[in-house]
Amino acid sequence: MSLRQNFTHYIHYLQNTICQGLEDIDGKATFKEDAWQRPGGGGGKTRVIRGGNVFEKGGVNVSTVHGKLNEALKKQLNVDHDEFFACGLSLVIHPVNPMVPTTHANFRFFELYDAHGKPQDSWFGGGMDLTPYYLWKEDAIHFHQTIKNTSDEYGKDLFPIFKEACDIYFYNAHRKEARGIGGNFFDYLREGKHGRTTQDWYDFTTAMGETFLEAYLPIVKRRMHEPYGEKEKIWQEIRRGRYVEFNLIHDKGTLFGLRSDGRIESILMSLPATVRWEYNHEPEAGSREEELLKYLVPIDWVGYEMAEEIR
Amino acid sequence: MSLRQNFTHYIHYLQNTICQGLEDIDGKATFKEDAWQRPGGGGGKTRVIRGGNVFEKGGVNVSTVHGKLNEALKKQLNVDHDEFFACGLSLVIHPVNPMVPTTHANFRFFELYDAHGKPQDSWFGGGMDLTPYYLWKEDAIHFHQTIKNTSDEYGKDLFPIFKEACDIYFYNAHRKEARGIGGNFFDYLREGKHGRTTQDWYDFTTAMGETFLEAYLPIVKRRMHEPYGEKEKIWQEIRRGRYVEFNLIHDKGTLFGLRSDGRIESILMSLPATVRWEYNHEPEAGSREEELLKYLVPIDWVGYEMAEEIR
Repeated sequence: MSLRQNFTHYIHYLQNTICQGLEDIDGKATFKEDAWQRPGGGGGKTRVIRGGNVFEKGGVNVSTVHGKLNEALKKQLNVDHDEFFACGLSLVIHPVNPMVPTTHANFRFFELYDAHGKPQDSWFGGGMDLTPYYLWKEDAIHFHQTIKNTSDEYGKDLFPIFKEACDIYFYNAHRKEARGIGGNFFDYLREGKHGRTTQDWYDFTTAMGETFLEAYLPIVKRRMHEPYGEKEKIWQEIRRGRYVEFNLIHDKGTLFGLRSDGRIESILMSLPATVRWEYNHEPEAGSREEELLKYLVPIDWVGYEMAEEIR
Repeated sequence: MSLRQNFTHYIHYLQNTICQGLEDIDGKATFKEDAWQRPGGGGGKTRVIRGGNVFEKGGVNVSTVHGKLNEALKKQLNVDHDEFFACGLSLVIHPVNPMVPTTHANFRFFELYDAHGKPQDSWFGGGMDLTPYYLWKEDAIHFHQTIKNTSDEYGKDLFPIFKEACDIYFYNAHRKEARGIGGNFFDYLREGKHGRTTQDWYDFTTAMGETFLEAYLPIVKRRMHEPYGEKEKIWQEIRRGRYVEFNLIHDKGTLFGLRSDGRIESILMSLPATVRWEYNHEPEAGSREEELLKYLVPIDWVGYEMAEEIR
């Protein structure tokens, strides 16, 4: 089988695994599936969870789309091929409890063809990142350490490269602030990149997909019963506003979806259920809300010195 | 005095008039002013109203900014000058009651200079538009008719041109749906355009500014005591999501502000206080919510046949 076929099977398997893992921890809500077709070619399965014990709104979507590259896409991808194929899994999870972080992950494969349908170029991309509303350092360390453990199996050079790429990508430039506390981000992983083969990148990307639940679920379990009140919910909704700003102003994935005539409701499923914008909001000095902001900068979480604080 | 000076005085006067008119009708909340300086040159006065009887969140801002044109701005404006001056009034009003429409208006002047500071080009722009959550046809007709009455004083050719430009501009292309029910929109009103002088456009733009309260306040008065419940509030918040999408994805004014290093909180003041995204939300067949959607297309409101329905 081709990489294209293998990866298509893989993301469908991964969708089942991740949805099951999230449903098990939620204990109330289940994912509802919408299968859709794309007029230009392909389609997807959007799975949405709503109103759960733990998850307020979330989606775990797979799509396989193919067709002609329009001018906007050629420009964005900086290529001049005729046909493309893209498939991937994309997820965003917005928990109810402000003490549980929002997370996003994406694992994707892209291939370009000449006018005779012959593959000309292909690459993998993806990553996962965490957006907390209140910061626990041990959660940030766990998330980054879990990613590093998997990454290191494919060479110790990769983790710092993709960690830095994540810090650069998930940056709300207009706010001069990171969207969250990072994770990893990789793209254009093609034959020869960083001395690896395309098959190496297939192995790496699928291993990262396997790692998602391991990186996220332990944090959910630790925080889902933390107490909170209206003040914390309002803070979460204000911070969700920054998430919306990133996705609609900066996120290339969202813009790709809109430009490639993707299914709007599947793309904008990433937006939280309830969001708030308050003019010139500033958290109280010395508050936990203000503390979060100090950590929305690139931090070497794996090397973070915890010993003192945990003791 | 130069047009630049006259218009700068005008927008400050208009800010006072509009804020007073809105405060009078609200009866509870008042505008709070933040004066700010722009590092690159200029500044503004942001006036925000919050938690009123009638207005949940709104801003009436003036700014006068000047400085060097960066590459992003040169590209957006399609010019190659060195220095620019821009001043304008911009307002967005989000009412509490879903029966009262949101409105936006903007009146602005732009001038470009050569390396010696000599004016090379200048133009006016602006307009006002209405975004209802529930549709009353007589409100839509009043809004458009009031704009037409003022517009016609400067020539009957202008109203249909700027009405159509508004329908084209305030279009959520990714949703294939208008943001609201339109109004007027004009830009690049410079010497010679449509056979008018720059002074004509000054007169037109300032007259439009004067017309804003006359177009909006009667609608607010008619609808501010209409009953509503949680269902209507949720619908308003979902529709506000579309407003956010337009402003962050499509609105050139917002993108100009972000690219020209404008004051973020003054630019994003346009976003509503509480917003909601529900996956794949569709209003009930035959409901008033569904009815609204039928009117989010270009409609000749001034010529709309009301006789039957009003009787």
